[in-house]
Amino acid sequence: MHHIQADMQGITELKQIYAPVEKDLVEVEAKIQSTKNVALPHLANLIEHILKGDGKRIRPALTLLSGKFYEYNLETLVPMAAALELLHTATLIHDDAIDHSLVRRNRPTVNKLWGEEQAVLLGDYLFAEAGWLTATTNNLRVIKLFSSTLKIISSGEIDQAVNAFSLNQSKECYYQRIAKKTATLFTTSMESGAVLSNAPEEAIQKLVEYGLNLGTAFQIVDDILDFASTETQLGKPTGSDLTQGTVTLPLLLFIDRYPEEEAVKQLFKDHNNPEITKTVIDMVRNSTIILDECYQAATGYSNNAISSLQGLPGNDARESLEDLAQYIVYRKK
Amino acid sequence: MHHIQADMQGITELKQIYAPVEKDLVEVEAKIQSTKNVALPHLANLIEHILKGDGKRIRPALTLLSGKFYEYNLETLVPMAAALELLHTATLIHDDAIDHSLVRRNRPTVNKLWGEEQAVLLGDYLFAEAGWLTATTNNLRVIKLFSSTLKIISSGEIDQAVNAFSLNQSKECYYQRIAKKTATLFTTSMESGAVLSNAPEEAIQKLVEYGLNLGTAFQIVDDILDFASTETQLGKPTGSDLTQGTVTLPLLLFIDRYPEEEAVKQLFKDHNNPEITKTVIDMVRNSTIILDECYQAATGYSNNAISSLQGLPGNDARESLEDLAQYIVYRKK
Repeated sequence: MHHIQADMQGITELKQIYAPVEKDLVEVEAKIQSTKNVALPHLANLIEHILKGDGKRIRPALTLLSGKFYEYNLETLVPMAAALELLHTATLIHDDAIDHSLVRRNRPTVNKLWGEEQAVLLGDYLFAEAGWLTATTNNLRVIKLFSSTLKIISSGEIDQAVNAFSLNQSKECYYQRIAKKTATLFTTSMESGAVLSNAPEEAIQKLVEYGLNLGTAFQIVDDILDFASTETQLGKPTGSDLTQGTVTLPLLLFIDRYPEEEAVKQLFKDHNNPEITKTVIDMVRNSTIILDECYQAATGYSNNAISSLQGLPGNDARESLEDLAQYIVYRKK
Repeated sequence: MHHIQADMQGITELKQIYAPVEKDLVEVEAKIQSTKNVALPHLANLIEHILKGDGKRIRPALTLLSGKFYEYNLETLVPMAAALELLHTATLIHDDAIDHSLVRRNRPTVNKLWGEEQAVLLGDYLFAEAGWLTATTNNLRVIKLFSSTLKIISSGEIDQAVNAFSLNQSKECYYQRIAKKTATLFTTSMESGAVLSNAPEEAIQKLVEYGLNLGTAFQIVDDILDFASTETQLGKPTGSDLTQGTVTLPLLLFIDRYPEEEAVKQLFKDHNNPEITKTVIDMVRNSTIILDECYQAATGYSNNAISSLQGLPGNDARESLEDLAQYIVYRKK
């Protein structure tokens, strides 16, 4: 299938899934974009650049959908949803600066265009803006949730940095790490939407469980696509995880299944050899068995996400969340 | 005078000034140090390293002193004071990572020991921890103040990065920048202490004005010491501002007064020449006229800080704030 076409299909599909909150997401987008209304022209340029990329806006959509079960209140849900997208954006900016990545969402990164110094500072600014928007909800529970989320994400990233190139780590270690660095923000998106709509605690916990499972499935698929997709489709180079030392599920399963493979043995001896790295990446990419096994794991979490919703009021938001859990597995970017 | 002796004198003096809040600062310190109680051993190591430096703890002292005029409530003042020191620490970690600085407070920086990647992530973690501690006050005004403070600081830092090596900038530009990157946090320290002690709005504004003036004087003296002090005394290399392109008051006044100086002309032509940079740094360092003029400016702000306190209840905290405004000008580190 032609890649551009696949992209367009992906976007259309997501738009359909977002239907119950589509017009409210327009408000969220306006709130996100208003971040660039600052006095310093250079800062405005930096923000404008970073907000132009075509993100999937999954996290704000989750907040709005999660807010649809009880008292749907846009006055607090819109700034909260915008805050979580900006928090996500800030972490991406810092990730790219740290990894010296040059391309993201098919566009040059901030560090590529303006240097790592400004990327770090822009990330800091957007963390603060996200914190500010969260504070405008005047809801202490989501305000505390916001700070603890950033604590968990950055400790997950530190854990990842420490475990770079450690090929012997367990799958439990991998799952714990992706829970921290990715699923936490999905959880927070769901919890904040639920809290701000005055959902009862039992319902909040169901929605949080959905977020944890969805986020885990999402990251597994991200890690599969890093091997199996193309740069055009993904909007950034493929194979970059292993190149940067990030050990993900496809690699762990591959090492597990083929410990006697010559390239695997060589990788254990010398993980800084680009040729060996490339050979292993190609072997994983071409292993239907391994990729299928990863997709099975992702599907398991996706199904758990859907099951978590049992007992919640049946409405169009719930249908959207169910569709989203399926979309997340089969997406191509 | 022997440097170590001067240091010890400085510390003793500060301890005397902090007397009215000395035992409460011990609680703040315990709260700050409790940040290292985390599950991830490596993260605990990073935090332990960064919290070992002998900071002056001016910002937490300001919060406590500012809280002494009305309802002094340690339950909220202690976490708030700890939060502001951690926010300050996080910005220093990011600054050092960005500037590739190797030494701070006489100790190797995080980026020197563990790389810039981990320094950026540790800074992010501490921003979040600071936000969390602020949120535990349950006071929406200081929570919002915290986020807007980080916005202002990082936009000030971005402004500084953009204006690196621009030797033609006005003094107004310099003063605006130091207000954002330094004085804002002093202002926030004062405002949060005042707000959390239920000070009337008029008193809050006096204490905020004190913070703005004190912070400005503090940064001018910092900029003087970068030229005039020694590495042992300062705990970090001197002359690093100009080397990194940060144009400060001593340099601006020097350029203003000696535009025909050969080294100044050469600096305009080629600011990347280490020899020219060193010559200019030495000329500024040895110019009593220029350093005196800078000290006069700092003294002016220090006096304004003291005047701002007029009309507040007379107590030992007020005396401390007055002494601190004087100490800040004459400190050697």
